[in-house]
Amino acid sequence: MTKAKPSPQERLLEAAAMLTYRDGVSIGVEALCKQAGVSKRSMYQFFQSKDELLAASLERRASAFGARLLPAADVDRSPRERILHVFEQVESQAGTPEFRGCRYLAVQIELKDEGHPASRVAHRVKEALTAFFRAEAEQGGASDPDLLARQLSLIFDGASARAGVGADNLAGLIAPTVITLLDRAGVR
Amino acid sequence: MTKAKPSPQERLLEAAAMLTYRDGVSIGVEALCKQAGVSKRSMYQFFQSKDELLAASLERRASAFGARLLPAADVDRSPRERILHVFEQVESQAGTPEFRGCRYLAVQIELKDEGHPASRVAHRVKEALTAFFRAEAEQGGASDPDLLARQLSLIFDGASARAGVGADNLAGLIAPTVITLLDRAGVR
Repeated sequence: MTKAKPSPQERLLEAAAMLTYRDGVSIGVEALCKQAGVSKRSMYQFFQSKDELLAASLERRASAFGARLLPAADVDRSPRERILHVFEQVESQAGTPEFRGCRYLAVQIELKDEGHPASRVAHRVKEALTAFFRAEAEQGGASDPDLLARQLSLIFDGASARAGVGADNLAGLIAPTVITLLDRAGVR
Repeated sequence: MTKAKPSPQERLLEAAAMLTYRDGVSIGVEALCKQAGVSKRSMYQFFQSKDELLAASLERRASAFGARLLPAADVDRSPRERILHVFEQVESQAGTPEFRGCRYLAVQIELKDEGHPASRVAHRVKEALTAFFRAEAEQGGASDPDLLARQLSLIFDGASARAGVGADNLAGLIAPTVITLLDRAGVR
């Protein structure tokens, strides 16, 4: 059985995700269409603008982003272990040569416009991660679940950013930092 | 006494610093020259390329960056207080409307090229901040000064980035996080 060829729309979404992660949000429409093998005319039939295409590509990646980071729901692990799982994934991803940090943070930093459709998608995806931390913190008996969720989000973004720009390889850094915060909050 | 008008070179450096912070590194040469009130021809007499201008503008800002963050050398404060001073400045800067996070982190994330002259300047400036943290950590008797310096750099970048994109206002977040890490490391 051969896999069906991706549709032009899917190829555009994939090209936008790949090229903006590698080259940044200022990538041109020409380059996006060339990578996707789709004409500009076709592109504008699917998406009103490059901004809309970028937002849709981030939206589409959101479930994969969650799946690569979050622990499986049916595994019997403590909230503490479930939180640490996320950071083990970050450390592991940071070790790959194509890693450039968290795409959802990068897009917001690059666009510098909180109202941009792609910034709004990115903001929402990261809020879902903070909500995951908060739910686990509460479940694990954290003294202040809101504070811990914000702290873990801060560690997540700081670690991804520093690894993405080659400032730190994260080895031996994230686990002791997260554990110190979990201990302080009394998370089991 | 009137202040001497800044030279064309100074105006270009200032325009590059201002516009890239506000709009990003993809800002065009036309816009930079217009902002500085300098012809493109003159610009290329001072700087070989836009990349060189950007690198020089970051270099020039480095001392102001340090001065705004680091405690005065002659003030009698403990290493713990000197480290906390830096994070008080971050929290205070993050409360201003024009704040978009750390310019040295943003440039590296935007350029996605560790070999770019501006990325190299940015990397060096941030390494100097990590070196400050390390020296204070050692002075304060930290159990592992290298680890603590990396942790503080991670908090610095995570906090600046999240405040810069409007994900967190940092209120009530940085001080408890930094204090927890200082306590764990036994810094006085």
